[in-house]
Amino acid sequence: MISKNQLKLLRALGQKKQRKAHGLFLVEGEKNVLELVDSPLTVQQVFATSEFLAEHANILRQYECVEASLDELTKASSLVSNNAAVAIVEIPKVEAPKAEGLMIALDGVSDPGNLGTIIRIADWYDIQHIVASSDCADPYNPKTIRATMGSFGRVQVSLLDLPSYLEQASIPVYGAFLEGESVHKTEFSAQGILLMGSESHGVRPAAERFVTDKITIPAFGGAESLNVAMATGIILDNLRRQHG
Amino acid sequence: MISKNQLKLLRALGQKKQRKAHGLFLVEGEKNVLELVDSPLTVQQVFATSEFLAEHANILRQYECVEASLDELTKASSLVSNNAAVAIVEIPKVEAPKAEGLMIALDGVSDPGNLGTIIRIADWYDIQHIVASSDCADPYNPKTIRATMGSFGRVQVSLLDLPSYLEQASIPVYGAFLEGESVHKTEFSAQGILLMGSESHGVRPAAERFVTDKITIPAFGGAESLNVAMATGIILDNLRRQHG
Repeated sequence: MISKNQLKLLRALGQKKQRKAHGLFLVEGEKNVLELVDSPLTVQQVFATSEFLAEHANILRQYECVEASLDELTKASSLVSNNAAVAIVEIPKVEAPKAEGLMIALDGVSDPGNLGTIIRIADWYDIQHIVASSDCADPYNPKTIRATMGSFGRVQVSLLDLPSYLEQASIPVYGAFLEGESVHKTEFSAQGILLMGSESHGVRPAAERFVTDKITIPAFGGAESLNVAMATGIILDNLRRQHG
Repeated sequence: MISKNQLKLLRALGQKKQRKAHGLFLVEGEKNVLELVDSPLTVQQVFATSEFLAEHANILRQYECVEASLDELTKASSLVSNNAAVAIVEIPKVEAPKAEGLMIALDGVSDPGNLGTIIRIADWYDIQHIVASSDCADPYNPKTIRATMGSFGRVQVSLLDLPSYLEQASIPVYGAFLEGESVHKTEFSAQGILLMGSESHGVRPAAERFVTDKITIPAFGGAESLNVAMATGIILDNLRRQHG
C-alpha cells in the first residue's frame, strides 16, 4: 500500500520546483521502469502491482519495492491509464558534455512531448548527448520521460547557457533553418552539433551566431513546416547515412 | 452568437457516428480554418471571433459566418484553448485513388494524432494519397485535423479494404519492418506504395502478403522502435531523395 506521505511525494514530483527541491523524478509505466535496470540511474523506490513485482522479481529485488493496487497507482500517477509501475529516481548530477562526436543542441524547445520524442530518436541514431537552452522543457518532466519510451536512460540532456556552449565548441554547428543547404546534398563532418530551434521561433539570433552551416530539409509539397522532433529525426538519418 | 442548435451540432461532430450521420466534420483553429480557402472542400459555416472575421473579411465573405466570443468558441470546441475559429465542413465524397505515383498505405494506425502527423509529413513530401485499412483512425476526427496543421486539404485519405487494394496494385509495395533492406541502400522505384503498420502490431499478415520489398530504417543505438509517424517521415525522405 502507498502511504499518505509516499502519495504526497509522488504527486509533488509532478512539479518542476518539487523535483528540484527533492532531487528526484518519476519514471512511470512498465516499460520505462524496466529500462531503469540497465541504466546508471539510482532508484529510490518502485511502486508496482503484485503481478508486476512477481513477474520481474529477479530484476527488481535490488530495489525497495512497494506493492500497490492499480487503482492506487493510477491515483498517484500523471499517466492516464494502465500504469502498473512507478519509480522514484534520483536526478543524476551531470556535467555538460565535451563538444565532440555527434550531438544535438536544442534552442527553446519547450514542449516536453517533443523533447521526449527527440530523446527517443537520438537514442535510435546513437546520439548520447543533448545540450539544451535553459528555457527548454524539463528532461525530468513525467511527460518527457513517458515520450522517450525508455530511451531516457541512454541519452543525457544538459540544460545550459546554449550560446556560450556553442561559442566554445570547436566542431561544426549545423543549424536547421527553412532556408539552407539541402540535407540531401550536405557533406556532414564526422563530428558536429545539430542545432534545432522551436517550431514557433526557430533558432534564435543568440544561438544562430555560432552556426557554421545552415541546413534544411527539402520540401516538395504544400506543408509549411515540420514538427521539431520529426525534423530532428529526418536530419539525423541523413547524418548517420554518411557517418554510421 | 452561437445558437443552442448550432452548439449541439458542433458538439455532436466530435463523434464519429454523428459525423457520418450528418456528412460533416469540424475544422478547428485559425490556421486550419484559413487553409480551407485554398482547398476544394465545401464549408457550411464559420464560427469565429469578431477580430478574426474582421481581419480576414475579404477571404471569409464567401462563407456563412457566425460571430462568437472566444468563450463560446472554447465551449463549442474540442481544442483546449485559443480557438478563434471553427468551421463546419462537408465530408467530401472521395473515390479510392488509382495505385500510381508515390502513395502511403496504413495498416491499423488507430491513433488520430499519428494519422494527422502522417498527413502533414505526406504533404511536405508531396504525397497526395493515403489509403488506410478501415480500422485506422478517422481522418475527420478533430484530433486528426488538428495534427495535420493545415495539410488536411491537400492529402486525401481513403479508408478501404487494404489487402484487396494492395492485391490489385501493380506498383511495388514497400513494407516497413524491423528487419528488411536498409532504406539507405534501397533503390526505390519511381512509383510505389509505402506500407506502414501500427507501433504495436506492425504490418499484419493479411497486408504483408502483398509486400514486394521489405525495408527498414537502420538503427544505430538502443531504442527498440520508432513512432509510426516518425518512421513514415524518415522513409519518405529517403524515397524523395531518389525521386524528387
